[in-house]
Amino acid sequence: MAQKPSIPKGTRDFSPAEMARRNYIFNTIRDVFRLFGYNQIETPAMENLSTLMGKYGEEGDKLLFKILNSGNYLAGVDPNLLNEEAFTKLTPQISEKGLRYDLTVPFARFVVQHRNDIQMPFRRFQIQPVWRADRPQKGRYREFYQCDADVVGSDSLLNEVELLQLIDEVFRRLKIRIAIKLNNRKVLAGIAELIGAPDKMIDITVAIDKIDKIGIDKVNEELADRGLSPESIAALQPILQIDGTIDERLAKLETLLAPSEIGSLGVKELREVVSNTIALGLDATLDLDVSLARGLNYYTGSIIEVKALDYAIGSITGGGRYDNLTGVFGMPGISGVGISFGADRIYDVLNGLDLYPADLGASAQVMFINFGPSEATASLKVIKQLRAAGISCELYPDAAKLKKQMNYANTAGIPFVALIGESEAAAGTLTLRNMTAGTQATLTPAQAIKEIKG
Amino acid sequence: MAQKPSIPKGTRDFSPAEMARRNYIFNTIRDVFRLFGYNQIETPAMENLSTLMGKYGEEGDKLLFKILNSGNYLAGVDPNLLNEEAFTKLTPQISEKGLRYDLTVPFARFVVQHRNDIQMPFRRFQIQPVWRADRPQKGRYREFYQCDADVVGSDSLLNEVELLQLIDEVFRRLKIRIAIKLNNRKVLAGIAELIGAPDKMIDITVAIDKIDKIGIDKVNEELADRGLSPESIAALQPILQIDGTIDERLAKLETLLAPSEIGSLGVKELREVVSNTIALGLDATLDLDVSLARGLNYYTGSIIEVKALDYAIGSITGGGRYDNLTGVFGMPGISGVGISFGADRIYDVLNGLDLYPADLGASAQVMFINFGPSEATASLKVIKQLRAAGISCELYPDAAKLKKQMNYANTAGIPFVALIGESEAAAGTLTLRNMTAGTQATLTPAQAIKEIKG
Repeated sequence: MAQKPSIPKGTRDFSPAEMARRNYIFNTIRDVFRLFGYNQIETPAMENLSTLMGKYGEEGDKLLFKILNSGNYLAGVDPNLLNEEAFTKLTPQISEKGLRYDLTVPFARFVVQHRNDIQMPFRRFQIQPVWRADRPQKGRYREFYQCDADVVGSDSLLNEVELLQLIDEVFRRLKIRIAIKLNNRKVLAGIAELIGAPDKMIDITVAIDKIDKIGIDKVNEELADRGLSPESIAALQPILQIDGTIDERLAKLETLLAPSEIGSLGVKELREVVSNTIALGLDATLDLDVSLARGLNYYTGSIIEVKALDYAIGSITGGGRYDNLTGVFGMPGISGVGISFGADRIYDVLNGLDLYPADLGASAQVMFINFGPSEATASLKVIKQLRAAGISCELYPDAAKLKKQMNYANTAGIPFVALIGESEAAAGTLTLRNMTAGTQATLTPAQAIKEIKG
Repeated sequence: MAQKPSIPKGTRDFSPAEMARRNYIFNTIRDVFRLFGYNQIETPAMENLSTLMGKYGEEGDKLLFKILNSGNYLAGVDPNLLNEEAFTKLTPQISEKGLRYDLTVPFARFVVQHRNDIQMPFRRFQIQPVWRADRPQKGRYREFYQCDADVVGSDSLLNEVELLQLIDEVFRRLKIRIAIKLNNRKVLAGIAELIGAPDKMIDITVAIDKIDKIGIDKVNEELADRGLSPESIAALQPILQIDGTIDERLAKLETLLAPSEIGSLGVKELREVVSNTIALGLDATLDLDVSLARGLNYYTGSIIEVKALDYAIGSITGGGRYDNLTGVFGMPGISGVGISFGADRIYDVLNGLDLYPADLGASAQVMFINFGPSEATASLKVIKQLRAAGISCELYPDAAKLKKQMNYANTAGIPFVALIGESEAAAGTLTLRNMTAGTQATLTPAQAIKEIKG
């Protein structure tokens, strides 16, 4: 009985045309990672649940895909746990492994596990899929790729400067105009201190992070709901209203945060990153945004976010500095900074703005028509010569009607069709048809190679 | 409390040096797939268990990694199934998805699911990891990559001829000397018919497949155990003892199998593949092996297997023709042929024979020494010029002791170190040290680019 085939919701198949576009993105990012001296690693899709649990908050734990133990997973399980109510307690008994949720925790685990084999500062990149049991919706998938670059073992802000250059180069190559937004967790701590609510930093940042979405009035309402006093909220307003050029903003922020030691340090760090970056030059727009908070519970210094200027979509790249990523695995005091490119959103931006190069090579360059056994044999010999010259070729495998074969080449977007009939086979030539121009000529294999390459 | 980090048994982390070697293999295979007109697809890591179950035999079903349903997976489950004895019945109630076991079944599912969007013949390649809950042992992993190329929708034997050329090209590029063994399932059917045991084809092929491992006497014993009559076993001997050149073997096989229609067809198919392949030329040794049976329950025509000539390891590539891969998903009558490269074994062969190219680019080409903030800023400007010329660079992020920085470059295998101190910064030059030759010179950035590229 035949099944109607489908795939799990939130997952995707990628066709050759989609793969060509995705590879264009991944190859661009990979090339730039390498150009900047990052080295690739890969980690397994499955990690021990003990590595993953508790790293992404309570909600994250629920979104982990857990793998059922092999064999009789119920053997030896406490029978009291075998009921609906006890399922959360049963889970660790029947599942020891889960699919990775991001690349950051596996990277931290990697650094600690291989601490004796790697040297610091360790610059790594990693491009692999991650899995989240999130509710699927437009632009949100249960399997998607992350493209991460991190340096650990160095607290130099030059790493931030380099990462901003790297971001700039990736999007310059992809021809996406971007704004890079900067902030610093220490500035957020300084703000909380300044307005007399140092213990409310998380509440403040969670609320002000939404300023772009909900506006200042709603943010102030939320701050009140979160227990901020009217005085604190009033004191916050000048900071939220800082404007001007990036230098002017830094100067105003410096003055405002002068009473806070940590806030001043944050401004100093921002200034160092900004001045070095401006000295080197940047295609992107560089912007300071004190409301930027992303991933707060984990970043401790610089916070970086990238938005496309010409396409409305969320952040397409983000990152920041963390001071204790490996602490949970027993290796404290390692500072690092990293960024993550959102390949799926970048894909949407490139599609939306139609920014892909004309020829992404989703098909062979030449298809040879099959006129029958002896012509096919002659074709295969010429194909061998063309391939040796680096030209991708395929032979239509069956001696089908010419029209059918031509249709195939046309639909596949193959730019050249080669015909070797009886006379070409006898003369050692081929008739090469340019499918775009509609022209054709009878050529020697050497001439054909020149024509196709030119 | 710190965890001692580890990864699930049978899985691996890959270091930058290992990734460089693996990428060399994957890139070589991918380049050749493209050169031969195969187009890339990707499918999700997770498939519905209904897609996977029953496709790999009873043993295969057990080796599937199954994913626990999200949320309260016990809600609504029959309480009678919540005990040790019932676990096989419970599994489908609490798990709907599994990790892919190979690339073939997901490919068949893809073809049927997207039948209206793809055109036949469909030539696809796919390079992705697969997962099997096998007992880990030397060279056998629970997560490993497969590199598959298949053509479906054509029964032309020219596809086999092309795949043999493709195999030859991959191993020529990797510099691994190989023998390609050929057989045909129809020959196996013919043999069974000939010796009067047509219903015993599976038993015969399973037994004779082991001839290389256990020898002819043990094979004959096993044939007897499997119910073959002494007459049948005696009749089989001349076939197992066929020798000579590939042409001589084909001739002898043709004579011996003349009484069997299907056997004769198998010989004819083999002859067509062999003669076309020899006409095109092959670096590899081509061999006929009537004991070759791999994946019998699935191949229906050609059977292909590749062995390394200079390194003792199992088959490093294999494949064959199947006539009904998509039938189980409701699309009968689609013939296809495919091959699968075993990346992990190829990795072992290349390691064992030390066949990797000298420079696999596992590190940056140049590391810039950090002498302090102003020199670092000057360095970053030169680095930007070098990167624009395509040279991968990194700046040591901290102004550590020179010896420490040099050690880092040395250990990382970085071929050039650049020094920009006060005088170089003032002069707009850099001192470039060739770490292999031990020489150094003070150069302009343009001269340095020439030196590094030359």
